[in-house]
Amino acid sequence: MTRQTTMLNAYTPGTGHLSPDDQALAERRAEALGPAYRLFYETPVHLVRGHGVTLYAPDGTAYLDCYNNVASVGHCHPRVVEAMARQAATLATHTRYLNEQILTYAERLLALVPRDLSHVMFTCTGSEANDLALRIARAATGGNGIIVTDNAYHGVTLATAEMSMSIGPAVAPGPTVFPIPAPSAANYPQGIAAGFAQAVAQACDRMAAQGIRPALLIVDTIFSSDGVCPDPAGFLAPAAAAIRKAGGLFLADEVQPGFGRTGSHFWGFQRHDLIPDMISMGKPMGNGYPLAGLVLKPEIIAEFGAKSRYFNTFGGNAVAAAVGLAVLDVIRDEALQQNAATVGAALADGLRSLARRHEALGETRAAGLFIGQTIQTNGTPDPARTNRLVNALRDNHILISSTGPQGDSLKIRPPLPFSQANVDQVLTTLDRLLGSL
Amino acid sequence: MTRQTTMLNAYTPGTGHLSPDDQALAERRAEALGPAYRLFYETPVHLVRGHGVTLYAPDGTAYLDCYNNVASVGHCHPRVVEAMARQAATLATHTRYLNEQILTYAERLLALVPRDLSHVMFTCTGSEANDLALRIARAATGGNGIIVTDNAYHGVTLATAEMSMSIGPAVAPGPTVFPIPAPSAANYPQGIAAGFAQAVAQACDRMAAQGIRPALLIVDTIFSSDGVCPDPAGFLAPAAAAIRKAGGLFLADEVQPGFGRTGSHFWGFQRHDLIPDMISMGKPMGNGYPLAGLVLKPEIIAEFGAKSRYFNTFGGNAVAAAVGLAVLDVIRDEALQQNAATVGAALADGLRSLARRHEALGETRAAGLFIGQTIQTNGTPDPARTNRLVNALRDNHILISSTGPQGDSLKIRPPLPFSQANVDQVLTTLDRLLGSL
Repeated sequence: MTRQTTMLNAYTPGTGHLSPDDQALAERRAEALGPAYRLFYETPVHLVRGHGVTLYAPDGTAYLDCYNNVASVGHCHPRVVEAMARQAATLATHTRYLNEQILTYAERLLALVPRDLSHVMFTCTGSEANDLALRIARAATGGNGIIVTDNAYHGVTLATAEMSMSIGPAVAPGPTVFPIPAPSAANYPQGIAAGFAQAVAQACDRMAAQGIRPALLIVDTIFSSDGVCPDPAGFLAPAAAAIRKAGGLFLADEVQPGFGRTGSHFWGFQRHDLIPDMISMGKPMGNGYPLAGLVLKPEIIAEFGAKSRYFNTFGGNAVAAAVGLAVLDVIRDEALQQNAATVGAALADGLRSLARRHEALGETRAAGLFIGQTIQTNGTPDPARTNRLVNALRDNHILISSTGPQGDSLKIRPPLPFSQANVDQVLTTLDRLLGSL
Repeated sequence: MTRQTTMLNAYTPGTGHLSPDDQALAERRAEALGPAYRLFYETPVHLVRGHGVTLYAPDGTAYLDCYNNVASVGHCHPRVVEAMARQAATLATHTRYLNEQILTYAERLLALVPRDLSHVMFTCTGSEANDLALRIARAATGGNGIIVTDNAYHGVTLATAEMSMSIGPAVAPGPTVFPIPAPSAANYPQGIAAGFAQAVAQACDRMAAQGIRPALLIVDTIFSSDGVCPDPAGFLAPAAAAIRKAGGLFLADEVQPGFGRTGSHFWGFQRHDLIPDMISMGKPMGNGYPLAGLVLKPEIIAEFGAKSRYFNTFGGNAVAAAVGLAVLDVIRDEALQQNAATVGAALADGLRSLARRHEALGETRAAGLFIGQTIQTNGTPDPARTNRLVNALRDNHILISSTGPQGDSLKIRPPLPFSQANVDQVLTTLDRLLGSL
C-alpha cells in the first residue's frame, strides 16, 4: 500500500479563485501562522457564522455542513453556549479543589459505558487522551508495543503522531509501533473478523521476535482515516481478544464515532459487541469546547495511580463539565442518536440508489451519520475524481471532504441534527454533478 | 539532590477534617476519577464560585486566592466571559477555513514578542505547545537531546512528562533528557550566569559522548517548580548562547511567567535580555479557557512545515481567539502588568520586612506577582514547616501552595488584580500564624 504524501483536499497557495479579501486573509495566515497550517479546498471557504447544520460566508452564502463532527449537536447550539457562559461566569477552576460539577458529569458519562469501565480522566484534546492511554498502558502491561491500522489517526503529540500513519511519511512510525492493514474486504478477502484478528496476532509475534512486549491495540472504531470500515458489525471482537491473549490492552478510540453518531449505538465499539479496556473520546464531547477524556477499567490504572499523579490544568474544569453535560442533555432531548440512525440510513440508501445511475459511485460504507463513499472510474477507485467532486460540491455550497489512504472516498459526517431535507439536497446535488465529472 | 517522591500539598484520603458533604464528594471523586487524581491540602477546599481574587465555598466563606495563575485577569472576568459567549454563539469552527478572528489574535500576540519570532501556532494546553516544540526542534536540528532543570515541569504528554523531573521518580527521564541543577545561588556558588551556562555546555558534552545531538534547552523562565529563580536578571542569556553554540535551540517556556505576571516585562525571558528561538505559552492565555500556543522564528519551522502539516482540532478555533483577545485587552486596559510590578514589589518588601521579626522566613525570590518564599528553621529550609504554614493559611482562608524540589518554599502567584489590601491581609495573617508555627 502506498501512503499518501500530502494532505487530502488541501489548498495550494497561489492557486484557486479567491476574492481579493480572501486572498489577503490567506496571505496574512501564511505570514502569521507559518507553513505547517493548511486550508481546505482548491478555493478555501471563508466562514463567519454557524447555526445548526449550516455555515455562512461573509456575503451570506449558506453552506450545508456535511463534514464537521465536532459541532455534533449543531453549530453554536444555544443550550451548550448558555451552559458554557453561565458556568464561566460562576467558577472555572481546576480539579484540585472539590467541586460537584465534574462529578455530576463524570457519573453521567460513566452511566453510558459498560460497567467494567468505572473511572474517567479528563483532558482537553483527543490527542492528550490517547497519549495518556499510552502512558497508562505501558504502566499496566510493562510493554510498549503498539498496534495501529495502516492509515490510522490518533493525535498530534509526539507519541500519538508516531502512531498516526495518516499524517504521512514525514512522521516515521515509532520504533515500537506496528501497523496492520485496515479491516476492509480488499485487505482481508478471507474474512475481515478472522483476518484482522490474525493480523493482530502476527503483529504481536513480530514484536516478540524483536523483544518487544505488547501494550496496546488502538483503533478508531469507525476507521475514519482508513476510509470508514463499519462492517460486518462484530468483526472487532476477535481482534480485541487477540491483543489480550498476547498481554496487551484494547483501546477503543471513540474520538470520531462516539456520542451517538453511528446511530444504532452511542459508541462505535458497541456495534462490535465487545468491552474495551479503555475508551478515548474527544471531538463532539464539548461541541467545540476543548474537552476530551479517557474512560477505563480500574485495574488498568491501579499501577499508574499508585506511583503517579495526573493533572491537566484545564482538563475537567467546571466549565468543561457544564458544557459536556449540556451536550449529553441535547443528544438525549433532541433524540440525535436516533436521528443519526434514521437520517444516516436514508442518506446511505440514497447513495446506493444513485449508484445505479452513476458509475462513479462505488461502495457505500455507513453506520448512522458516518459514511465513506468510494468514488471510482470503470470500477477502480479514483482519488482524482473524488477530489474533483469534493471541490464541485464546495462550489455548490456543500462542505464535505475525502478519506482513505488514497483519498478515493467521500467522508460524510455532518452535525447530527441533519434532516431528510438536507439528505435530499446532498443527493440532488450529487445527481446533478456526477453527470459531468 | 533528592527528588520529591510524592506531590507537594496533596490530600491524603481518610485524613483531614471534612464536613460530611465534602467527605461524600471526596468519595465520589475517588470512585469516578480513580487513583491518579489529587486534591490540595490536608483538608480539601470545596469551591462553588469565583470573582476577582476571591474564591467562595458553598457556605459563603471567602478565600483569598494567592495561588491560581490561570485565572490571571481575575476569576470569571466579565469581559472574557462575554467574548467567549458572543463568539461561541456566532462561530466556533477550526483553522482549515478562512476566518479573521484567529489572524487578528495571532497578529496581536506577535506584536508582543521580538520581531525575529514571526509565526504562532495554536494548541489547547501548554503540554501540547511544549510537545509540538520538541517535534519542531527535532526536525530543525536533526538532534533529539533535551536539557531541562532538575525539578522542571513542562507537561503531561508522554514526551513532556519525560522531561518534567518534578513529576517524581515514577516517570523516568527520557533517554535523551539531560537534567541540570536549577539556577540558584546554592547550586552555582561561583555565579549563576556563568555556572548555569557551563552546566548547559557540559550537558551537551555528555550528549556528544553518547552520540546524541542537542535539540533543545527548555526552561520555565521563572523556574516555578524549581522553587522560583528570578535573579540576577540576565543570567539566562549565556545559557541560551551555550545551547546554540552546540547546535540546539533555546525554548522559553512562558506558560507560567508570561502575560505580564513578572511585572517589569510581559514575558519572563525579557528580564534576561535575550531572544528565544521558540516561546511556549499557556495557562493565563485564555484565563481558564483551554488555550495555549507556540511562537517561533520562521527558519525553525521551515523544515517541519515543508514536510509536515499541523492541525489541532480545537487549537486556534474562533472562540479561543476571541477569548485570547479579550485577555490581552483586559491586561492592557486594567494595567495588570504594572499592577503586578507595584503590588508584587509591595508583597516582596513586606515579606522581607516580616523576616526581620520571624526567623521562619528565609529568602524571598520575587519578580512581580511570582514569588518564592523559603520557610526555614534555624536557617535551614524546612519542608514540614512550609507544609504546616500552607495548611494554616488555608484554614485562615488564604489559598497558597509550596514549591521547590523539597517543598520548602511558599509559591505565591495570585490573579493579577491583586490589591494592596490583599497584600496587607496576607502579611497580617502570616505575621499572626508565624508566631506559633
